[in-house]
Amino acid sequence: MNAFDSRVKMKVLELARRRKTVRKFERTEVRLETVLKIIEAARQAPSGANRQPWRFLVVRDPSVKRRIREAAEEGEREFYKRVQGELKEWLRERGFSPDKPFLEEAPILILVFSDVRSPYHTQSTWLAIGFMLLAIEEAGLGTVTYTPSNPELVSRVVDSPDGLKLEAILPIGLPADDKPKERRRSLREICFLDSWETPCPE
Amino acid sequence: MNAFDSRVKMKVLELARRRKTVRKFERTEVRLETVLKIIEAARQAPSGANRQPWRFLVVRDPSVKRRIREAAEEGEREFYKRVQGELKEWLRERGFSPDKPFLEEAPILILVFSDVRSPYHTQSTWLAIGFMLLAIEEAGLGTVTYTPSNPELVSRVVDSPDGLKLEAILPIGLPADDKPKERRRSLREICFLDSWETPCPE
Repeated sequence: MNAFDSRVKMKVLELARRRKTVRKFERTEVRLETVLKIIEAARQAPSGANRQPWRFLVVRDPSVKRRIREAAEEGEREFYKRVQGELKEWLRERGFSPDKPFLEEAPILILVFSDVRSPYHTQSTWLAIGFMLLAIEEAGLGTVTYTPSNPELVSRVVDSPDGLKLEAILPIGLPADDKPKERRRSLREICFLDSWETPCPE
Repeated sequence: MNAFDSRVKMKVLELARRRKTVRKFERTEVRLETVLKIIEAARQAPSGANRQPWRFLVVRDPSVKRRIREAAEEGEREFYKRVQGELKEWLRERGFSPDKPFLEEAPILILVFSDVRSPYHTQSTWLAIGFMLLAIEEAGLGTVTYTPSNPELVSRVVDSPDGLKLEAILPIGLPADDKPKERRRSLREICFLDSWETPCPE
């Protein structure tokens, strides 16, 4: 018997299923206490050689948010000039553009960095971001794991210390985005039992 | 008001705090239903351009587990010959060696791959691993996010399709590891408010 027995409520699975990406936010303030608890969840994650390579910069200052948005959009404009093929089509279909208003509209941004001198720094930091997303969902808040096309431009705005790489920006706020959750592949497409010829049952 | 109001129970934070890395397992079987629910949590994660680049190979066959262990240990022996400095010392202090008995002793291994043709495939896959770790904890099970030093040797054993990169192996079982959780950095060391000069309050 374990907690995933079908009779037992599975909170993590419920949060993972309910969660969708949010790019529009209410202007309502988010309490700092809540943000710190989201980061506390990340703090508990495992990491390569326990180096805990993650660093978090919480940005509330509207003028800093505006400069982050400007730097990010500059990088996006360069990216949109270069992007080709399937990804270009995917972006177009969804109405994506270099505009990133959520970087200014969300009441709080969490900039997530990794220390490039630690082993598996990117992997460890994204695992910790996974913890954060479920904590954000449980708090009734929304986010998008936005990775700037040119993170260096944003790093300069916030004058980030040497050796830290910007992995993602999480804008945090009350969700105001009516886009539905994107479709997920079936379990049969992604999961296999003992051999690649045996898909997992749904 | 939100769910992180101090009066409300925070399940994700509780699981994140309780969770520790487990490298020793009971031989007790783990139900496949449970494993599929852990993978179902990962399936719900967001990913770059929603490509869902993760693929999971669930290994229960003892002879396959043995060959995975042998291939992984071969890679570790090469790594241990090369490793230097701070990391070498960290490994020695903790009694780590090229031996990876958990790859045979855990009743189930989940091999986690990413499709290298997808944007942000490594980042997306490790975010999904974050979802899995909390689901594993909630199920009363344990794991370690083990990345082989030479993933290619293990990929060959399981004959993984072209374009898939082995990101991690999660051995899954009932915990039998009395090692305590590794110390975490304080919030003040990893979290900053609006400027790198202002650490977050504990």
